[in-house]
Amino acid sequence: MLENRLKALSAAIVQSYDDLSETIKFGSAALPASKKLVKLLGKLQALLFPAYFGKPFSIPASVSCHVGVALEEIQTELSREVAKALPHLERYAKEETNDLAAEARWLVIAFLEQLPQIREALEADIQAAYDGDPAAFSKDEVIASYPGFYAVMTYRLANRLHKLGAPLIPRIWSEHAHGRTGIDIHPGASIGRYFFIDHGTGIVIGETTVIGNHVKIYQGVTLGGISTRGGQALRGVKRHPTVEDYVTIYSGASIFGGQTVIGKHSVIGSNVFIATSVPEYTKVSVKNPELQYKDNNLTPKNELEQDEFWTWNI
Amino acid sequence: MLENRLKALSAAIVQSYDDLSETIKFGSAALPASKKLVKLLGKLQALLFPAYFGKPFSIPASVSCHVGVALEEIQTELSREVAKALPHLERYAKEETNDLAAEARWLVIAFLEQLPQIREALEADIQAAYDGDPAAFSKDEVIASYPGFYAVMTYRLANRLHKLGAPLIPRIWSEHAHGRTGIDIHPGASIGRYFFIDHGTGIVIGETTVIGNHVKIYQGVTLGGISTRGGQALRGVKRHPTVEDYVTIYSGASIFGGQTVIGKHSVIGSNVFIATSVPEYTKVSVKNPELQYKDNNLTPKNELEQDEFWTWNI
Amino acid sequence: MLENRLKALSAAIVQSYDDLSETIKFGSAALPASKKLVKLLGKLQALLFPAYFGKPFSIPASVSCHVGVALEEIQTELSREVAKALPHLERYAKEETNDLAAEARWLVIAFLEQLPQIREALEADIQAAYDGDPAAFSKDEVIASYPGFYAVMTYRLANRLHKLGAPLIPRIWSEHAHGRTGIDIHPGASIGRYFFIDHGTGIVIGETTVIGNHVKIYQGVTLGGISTRGGQALRGVKRHPTVEDYVTIYSGASIFGGQTVIGKHSVIGSNVFIATSVPEYTKVSVKNPELQYKDNNLTPKNELEQDEFWTWNI
Repeated sequence: MLENRLKALSAAIVQSYDDLSETIKFGSAALPASKKLVKLLGKLQALLFPAYFGKPFSIPASVSCHVGVALEEIQTELSREVAKALPHLERYAKEETNDLAAEARWLVIAFLEQLPQIREALEADIQAAYDGDPAAFSKDEVIASYPGFYAVMTYRLANRLHKLGAPLIPRIWSEHAHGRTGIDIHPGASIGRYFFIDHGTGIVIGETTVIGNHVKIYQGVTLGGISTRGGQALRGVKRHPTVEDYVTIYSGASIFGGQTVIGKHSVIGSNVFIATSVPEYTKVSVKNPELQYKDNNLTPKNELEQDEFWTWNI
Repeated sequence: MLENRLKALSAAIVQSYDDLSETIKFGSAALPASKKLVKLLGKLQALLFPAYFGKPFSIPASVSCHVGVALEEIQTELSREVAKALPHLERYAKEETNDLAAEARWLVIAFLEQLPQIREALEADIQAAYDGDPAAFSKDEVIASYPGFYAVMTYRLANRLHKLGAPLIPRIWSEHAHGRTGIDIHPGASIGRYFFIDHGTGIVIGETTVIGNHVKIYQGVTLGGISTRGGQALRGVKRHPTVEDYVTIYSGASIFGGQTVIGKHSVIGSNVFIATSVPEYTKVSVKNPELQYKDNNLTPKNELEQDEFWTWNI
Repeated sequence: MLENRLKALSAAIVQSYDDLSETIKFGSAALPASKKLVKLLGKLQALLFPAYFGKPFSIPASVSCHVGVALEEIQTELSREVAKALPHLERYAKEETNDLAAEARWLVIAFLEQLPQIREALEADIQAAYDGDPAAFSKDEVIASYPGFYAVMTYRLANRLHKLGAPLIPRIWSEHAHGRTGIDIHPGASIGRYFFIDHGTGIVIGETTVIGNHVKIYQGVTLGGISTRGGQALRGVKRHPTVEDYVTIYSGASIFGGQTVIGKHSVIGSNVFIATSVPEYTKVSVKNPELQYKDNNLTPKNELEQDEFWTWNI
């Protein structure tokens, strides 16, 4: 009978919580709330570019009030989430800290105080996108619609919070941007000024990547780490490449390894795979593919036959 | 005059509904509601990992009540959607079944009864992610933020429902996860234990793919079928590869064909394309790319000239 | 003290608005509202395929009323957004136009009058998806769940509005679809009939691309422009390839350049990179990768050792 089966199932699920308790959290061990954090990210972005990610200020004179109120809100709400995240740091496993709330508040104000510099850095990124993309209609279009800009803006925020030592939250932000844009930038990566990501879907920039200034990266590029299955053994080791100033990396190129350095002004061609360093002013490209011409006597009698001919022989 | 043009347009659109009636559904031929189904997926995920995808239970003692209520809701609402989906099966085109609602209810309870095993399988996937990624801060981070985990969790749910014969819904779930993560796993694919997807964007795992245990796959990997334009002729045929235990497939690799088997413990390098089998304990990698060094006398006089030099000659 | 630091920060942020005023908009210089535009896109899609993207009409007789009301809403709301977008055109920087609202209204009605033809084109795209994908369960599944169809539907709408000269909005729509599907089709691209995108994540189709009829494209394909860092200099130049009728392009292939033409009935293999033209009836594929077999005496003693062996030597 349905009711009984539901009842038994309910018991089995509760049982599974006990068996696998490590990944079940009860009231006490709260986690930062992802949805809340995404909302807060939106408020931060609206503070950086009001008309694009929030409401435009109708009366310029009232701007300072708007900003003051927004800051107060963000300070309060973000502090609450940071206070939930801090206990996940190892050091808290050891000693009990007496005032998480206070520590969170000071961490958040230190973070917010970096907003003006973040805004300045983003202006350079906007310029890079406009200069670098003939399809860019205007800077407004870049800010309002470019996923690459959205991902970089989120990275610059997440990276600062990460540096200040708040766990979980920066990654939740970066994975939100990853989900929205397909661009996966770890908050721990270090990225210079005037950075442009075009299209962007499929880009991966790993935790220990170092990128210089005036670098341009296209969709599907991986700046990756050589992995081992004993992954946690490599925690903290530099596993991802260094990309120097004025480098361009075309779509689908994959660059691996913590010792790999792409020298300044070099160009990495589309679909290239490399795990070794490249000197400066060097161009790397894949060999030409093989072209197979069809025998003219074999002109397909119908579409399906042609199709067999072309596809099954790959 | 605007009003008249709107009126004429309205008539033209209604007319187009009649002309192209096959893709217009009226009340009678309802479809499962995508938004509703995504909400239900969220409720299932909250049931599997309460604190991460739902609200943490504030009082451990009340857990069984929470679970009981959630199960009842899901049973009722999912049954309603399944009842809308079932008539899309061919067999229903023929004979009229007298009790879709009952059939849906039994199908859904059979599905829900698999939640404890699904949860257990997901614990192994979480462990695989934590073990396999040096950047993983904790298992909490994996569950709360890793898109690969979200996609695998959705797959394990969709796959069970698919096996029970509910049409449309599993695919709507998997395409929701695809949209959110960029990872496209067909509900019909078969995937073993301790499976880890890192980064994930751009991964495609086709309908008839078979994947063993302890397999690790990176972003941009395709496990694809050789296609023909007479596609429906191949319905049901095994068109996608088999990947044996302990295989690692690096970013951007593409593996095609239903007869293709990647033997156990093999490693497929980044950006490799293969449509033939690979023996066990084999490493496959692309040839080294060509490096072109710049003539020192040609040091660009300005950035644009350098740019011409490097890009237009690709 | 926290309050003082917040106060000082607030002033600093307001200051940064003045310093970087170009990307700060106040009430006067409004932008089209992205969220509103995405809602409107949804209403247009519901008008094209009622049961799939909106509510199914319960009483067929009332269809014309539903359509009439929806059209009126869209006409009014979309006109408002277009009126905000038009001033971003250069010509408006020069002379002040006296009736933006009227111009917007006529532009929008001209756009809406193309819905029946758009609907017809989409029917052919649905057929292409069903014919081209053995995993397609039904046309219903294609419409309700295929990201490729969602992206093409959005493109066909954005492209018409783009041709009518409305700035910003078409790109906001296409980037919304890009975010949801990972498929980036610039509204300026030209795409023929019976077009099928399978899986789709990571596809980029650039602004000046020209695609014929019966073309099939898989995930991760780039139809890209050779870029220069003086990007805006190339505004308007044909920078992206031409793909003729009956061409198939497999996953991860990258095709670059405005002079590049892929001749009809040709097949571009997976992971191929080309920046030169390909004659008709030609198959292009990458060279076979190198296989490295493991020395049998070196059978790894444990998983980690094996792992070292296989990965660090890449």
